[in-house]
Amino acid sequence: MDLHGGNIYKIFREKDMDKILDYSSNINPFGLPESLKKAISENMEILEKYPDPDYYDLRKTIAEYNGTEIDNVLAGNGATELIFLYMKAVKPKKALILSPTFAEYERGIKSAAPQCETVYFHLEEADDFIPDMKKLKAELKKGYDLVVLCNPNNPTGKFLSKEKILELLSECDKYDTRLFVDEAFIEFAEGGIKSSPAGENANKKNLFIIRALTKFFALPGLRLGYALFFDSSLKEIFDSLKEPWSVNAFAELAGKTLFSDTDYIEKTEGWIKEEKRYMFNELGKIKNIKVYKTETNFILLKMYKKNAAFVRAEMLKKGILVRDASNFTYLDETFIRLAVKDRENNNIVIKKLNEVINGDNENE
Amino acid sequence: MDLHGGNIYKIFREKDMDKILDYSSNINPFGLPESLKKAISENMEILEKYPDPDYYDLRKTIAEYNGTEIDNVLAGNGATELIFLYMKAVKPKKALILSPTFAEYERGIKSAAPQCETVYFHLEEADDFIPDMKKLKAELKKGYDLVVLCNPNNPTGKFLSKEKILELLSECDKYDTRLFVDEAFIEFAEGGIKSSPAGENANKKNLFIIRALTKFFALPGLRLGYALFFDSSLKEIFDSLKEPWSVNAFAELAGKTLFSDTDYIEKTEGWIKEEKRYMFNELGKIKNIKVYKTETNFILLKMYKKNAAFVRAEMLKKGILVRDASNFTYLDETFIRLAVKDRENNNIVIKKLNEVINGDNENE
Repeated sequence: MDLHGGNIYKIFREKDMDKILDYSSNINPFGLPESLKKAISENMEILEKYPDPDYYDLRKTIAEYNGTEIDNVLAGNGATELIFLYMKAVKPKKALILSPTFAEYERGIKSAAPQCETVYFHLEEADDFIPDMKKLKAELKKGYDLVVLCNPNNPTGKFLSKEKILELLSECDKYDTRLFVDEAFIEFAEGGIKSSPAGENANKKNLFIIRALTKFFALPGLRLGYALFFDSSLKEIFDSLKEPWSVNAFAELAGKTLFSDTDYIEKTEGWIKEEKRYMFNELGKIKNIKVYKTETNFILLKMYKKNAAFVRAEMLKKGILVRDASNFTYLDETFIRLAVKDRENNNIVIKKLNEVINGDNENE
Repeated sequence: MDLHGGNIYKIFREKDMDKILDYSSNINPFGLPESLKKAISENMEILEKYPDPDYYDLRKTIAEYNGTEIDNVLAGNGATELIFLYMKAVKPKKALILSPTFAEYERGIKSAAPQCETVYFHLEEADDFIPDMKKLKAELKKGYDLVVLCNPNNPTGKFLSKEKILELLSECDKYDTRLFVDEAFIEFAEGGIKSSPAGENANKKNLFIIRALTKFFALPGLRLGYALFFDSSLKEIFDSLKEPWSVNAFAELAGKTLFSDTDYIEKTEGWIKEEKRYMFNELGKIKNIKVYKTETNFILLKMYKKNAAFVRAEMLKKGILVRDASNFTYLDETFIRLAVKDRENNNIVIKKLNEVINGDNENE
């Protein structure tokens, strides 16, 4: 498996590298919150019990954080479990995926409903990958039971406001089409979770949102995701399909700890606001590339003179792993994706990227 | 969900109890190994990375522990994920389950192959729930694609030697029947994993074994299970079905740490050898019950004068949770199951159970 284009373990095994700057994986550079380290150290003994199979306290905390009710919350072993579970529950027959985007939605559909007709809605390079709402609405008339989008979108970094999502949702309602929105990166967007439609007063029956603590709280190793759903008829289906105890006790603890860690949250919000702008501006000075403006913590680049496999290989020689984005639907070998991290490392990556793309002496 | 007949979280919420002696869940009373506490404290930062999607090092360690090869090992989010995954992979059409046993096998079959004809092979009370091999072999002639058993068996505590399992496997081979063996409790049996057929030199193509670290290493909250399989054609199917990163980074760490914790392993082996005998003997002194001899860390009891719901409720008033075993197929309201724990608590439970069954003054 090479799910990120960045299986660093495989690279370690094959290249015997001691250390690598991983810009293929979009994790908060502040790292694991101290509040969670403390909570884990002080609560090791929770491992000695099975987690609450209802995840009652965890779901309550998540509901409060999102201004919604416990019955709207489902906890999962990372967002991944919830993608697969949702697809099993709704078993779509005809699904529209706004693409390019994260490949797991399609994998989830294929695994749950192999007969499903999967159609890509093309987010055009010419439109800077921003969805054309008029075209999208026209497409919906063709009759889908499911529309899938990622917001902010991986790998493009583009973000639809909650007004746009609600407009789309109301259009979906006309055809009884479900709307699946992956908000794994929403905390990095301006306004954070307040810019999600989750807490809005609207008819949200067809809306299904997934979130993860992975990126924002820097804990991809812990595996905690959750879903917000508003169609109560799904609850029974989820209960019948869900494997018990899929969320481990420390992930449960993380959920109960981190939403109230306002220091970490505010520190991160300040950093990303500043750093995504800085990185966009600095990358913009490099010749022979196009930088797509991002509203989250990664940046998509198009390169005019070098291809992605070459750049990835050359950057790796310099100890940096970038995401070759050529295997995203509708992207090609001219695209790579970079994480936004801390200033010091961002500067190193920008400098090395310029060397790889334009030779050592240009642009300096 | 009330998966153990012992959702202590639900009981906490409903009864507002501060503390409960949980004899419904069969966890090693030595608790979380110190070696793991230390490893977690010293390696918190592993949470900041995605786990290795191939779980290479983890699978290598498991393979070495079991005297087998890395390609025979699959890691999972507890044994539960692997039960469901296996059933999805083999999609049985006609399955034989040795019963009474753990209910998740049937749930896994129903979820993966709703059309599957599921037949129970009756482990007879009159035979002390030990399988009659002659009858079992005769049953196999009817043509099954899957036989499922738990060894040692939950809830009966009975254990089949590896010679018996290999005999059954060789019979299965005649009809190309797969054999699924849950060895979640095998480390508590005499000889531990050496009494498993996993490391034996035999044709094991049809054999699939699942294990968990849950019980023996007292970490049900951490979620680590693994499977040993010997049919290489299954690998590709597992790869296509398995959700990525289902094992969290601390679970991965536990696997790499605990198999070499010989102090903990030997201490536990010494305790269980002594304590299962002690508890069997002491429970045997209580009137009006039958105690089934166990080869693992729980004991099945039949009661002649009180029913399981009553005993469970009365024991709960005394702060002890026992497993009402009446919902196991082929058991009824005369059965409860007790964990084997440390001497002090075992003595409390034995005394209180006698009070509930025979009144406060009898047998004292």
